[in-house]
Amino acid sequence: MEPSGGSRDARPAVTPVAAVLPAGGSGERLGGATPKQFCAVQGRPLVSYAVRAMERISWISDIIVVVSPENIETMKSIIEKYGHKRVMIVKGGITRHRSIFNGLKVFAKNEFSNHLLQKPEVVIIHDAVRPFVEEDILSKVVMAAKEHGAAGAIRPLVSTVIASAADGCLDHSLERARYRASEMPQAFLFDTIYEAYQQCTDYDLDYGTECLHLALKYCNTSAKLVEGTADLWKVTYKRDLYAAESIIKDNLSQQVCVITNVKEAVAQVGFLLHESLKSQIKVEAVSISLSKNDSHLQNIFSGQCYNFICVNDRKYAIQETQQLVDMLEKSSIPLLYPVVLILVHLDISENISFSIGMEELTRIKKFAREVKKKNILVYGLLIQYK
Amino acid sequence: MEPSGGSRDARPAVTPVAAVLPAGGSGERLGGATPKQFCAVQGRPLVSYAVRAMERISWISDIIVVVSPENIETMKSIIEKYGHKRVMIVKGGITRHRSIFNGLKVFAKNEFSNHLLQKPEVVIIHDAVRPFVEEDILSKVVMAAKEHGAAGAIRPLVSTVIASAADGCLDHSLERARYRASEMPQAFLFDTIYEAYQQCTDYDLDYGTECLHLALKYCNTSAKLVEGTADLWKVTYKRDLYAAESIIKDNLSQQVCVITNVKEAVAQVGFLLHESLKSQIKVEAVSISLSKNDSHLQNIFSGQCYNFICVNDRKYAIQETQQLVDMLEKSSIPLLYPVVLILVHLDISENISFSIGMEELTRIKKFAREVKKKNILVYGLLIQYK
Repeated sequence: MEPSGGSRDARPAVTPVAAVLPAGGSGERLGGATPKQFCAVQGRPLVSYAVRAMERISWISDIIVVVSPENIETMKSIIEKYGHKRVMIVKGGITRHRSIFNGLKVFAKNEFSNHLLQKPEVVIIHDAVRPFVEEDILSKVVMAAKEHGAAGAIRPLVSTVIASAADGCLDHSLERARYRASEMPQAFLFDTIYEAYQQCTDYDLDYGTECLHLALKYCNTSAKLVEGTADLWKVTYKRDLYAAESIIKDNLSQQVCVITNVKEAVAQVGFLLHESLKSQIKVEAVSISLSKNDSHLQNIFSGQCYNFICVNDRKYAIQETQQLVDMLEKSSIPLLYPVVLILVHLDISENISFSIGMEELTRIKKFAREVKKKNILVYGLLIQYK
Repeated sequence: MEPSGGSRDARPAVTPVAAVLPAGGSGERLGGATPKQFCAVQGRPLVSYAVRAMERISWISDIIVVVSPENIETMKSIIEKYGHKRVMIVKGGITRHRSIFNGLKVFAKNEFSNHLLQKPEVVIIHDAVRPFVEEDILSKVVMAAKEHGAAGAIRPLVSTVIASAADGCLDHSLERARYRASEMPQAFLFDTIYEAYQQCTDYDLDYGTECLHLALKYCNTSAKLVEGTADLWKVTYKRDLYAAESIIKDNLSQQVCVITNVKEAVAQVGFLLHESLKSQIKVEAVSISLSKNDSHLQNIFSGQCYNFICVNDRKYAIQETQQLVDMLEKSSIPLLYPVVLILVHLDISENISFSIGMEELTRIKKFAREVKKKNILVYGLLIQYK
């Protein structure tokens, strides 16, 4: 339950912030037996992407995943398999609102006293079936919730919305510009949304779905609406799973992680690489001592980055590379796709003979042959650097 | 402009029916330079799928595609490349409503006198960016329009719809069950929708998007709302292109066409195959004389079916297969994916020797080697049939 991992651009958000992810749906609109939040996308259940999206943000202290009783074991094994941290599983109710309420109760006094967590000032509510939420929008709704009591992401309507009359004919159509689609994430002052749930009727708990509505109705809190990005959409139909899969594949191939050790000359090369690559591809850059089990690097692994450029000093080359390969193997990256590892070995000393260089390349080739069996493709580059 | 092609389950629809496809959008929400209707999905522009969806329905006499002036040449080349029939291109206006109005004017007297088409009783309006419309829903909206004057497909709302107040906060949220998303196709008595467009204000033409609304406002015609299937969704964002691509790929691999000649014994085998396969895969079955250029088979080709089982009499086997391969080559199937052609040669005569059978198989193998260069994979089966 300890907050771990480092998002480098953590915003000056309120503390503490927690997140509740209702994941109790049956996914009947998807037309399959597996509820959509447990459907695998690139070999990983959708809910795991949503958890990861929360988990990589350092200022979110606790992540409550609410699942129906029959899926608790499934969820436990997902958390274990993908190494999720700061996650608690809570048993859901029979409707979405009842599930969210159960999730919130974990933070309230005198309930679930065995696993009482610190009550957050602000709680984020986000769907398990919206895998692509970014820190930026989470930060915005949290800040807005702190100011207004409630906030939610909105998007323009894709289709015109109409009301039908009793005879199944058009009654009226809504003026599209005046209305918005209410999406997730939403955020609330904990006391506000908890109060709303405590007050609300069984009818609301059974038939409502919209948390912003409850905050308005029972606490007279009018939520601040925050324009969200197109990637906040909810996986609802089978076509959405297809879309999610393609987006994730796209991200995989467009992301590279540059790893250097902490030595100044080496870190500088890493910095230059990062600068020259960043206009073309998403680049994460880390300077670490590979001997330590770096949590930021762990986060990058769990973000399913498949491309690495590892810059290091020739002297420690094979040793550091071996450590990286060990970490990759231990990580939760499901090795469905080959990991590409480009080694850049810098020789900072003045005197390197041709034969020593050749010897090194032979060692790299041998190493590459070995790790290829593990679906890790190694390419080596030896650079004399002055 | 002649109606051609035969959909076997043409419904008893009103005649004549025409379709207008507004395809003038700029696709700005997609984030690319190419308007979404011209984006290639499996190597074929989206608009071509929508045109094909209309074209394969025999009771739709004319298809009007409305494109912006700068895309007229592009649209012409699409029609030529994919062999679309019964299509007329019309220059669009600066808004969606103005484009649809231009499309309708083709059927009105005294306008565009050079290409005046027969005025339809009912006109379908469908988006060029909704590629997956089936005959069933088209038939339903046409029948409903004939009865009620107007009709449109609807879907349940995916997200809650909210109204925002002037300060960017929540004003109220709509009760989801009372509202529906208005989708396409829609259909109208031609006189009703044309009257509505003639009456409507510049404001409506410039800022409105919903045809059902115009029919209600200007002709007091309350459209019948018809529940549509999930595949009616509109390609709006890049993720929708991904989804469309995956759905089309899925369809490719889940569809087979059984072709037999008209000879009774052979056609019977085709019928039995169809019956036994249809629970597992989408099966089209045609009995044709391959020497004729069959328009139904052409439609199947243009429907991008990639799997064929060709049942024929041993005596004409290679000859008929060669004809089929010739037709495939001439068709508009972009040979991105291999076409699989399973030949089932029936020997109906009593006396076939082992050596004749072997000779035949050798010929099939040689034939298969040749057509493999054209990305057509041939598998042969010789069956003695009594």
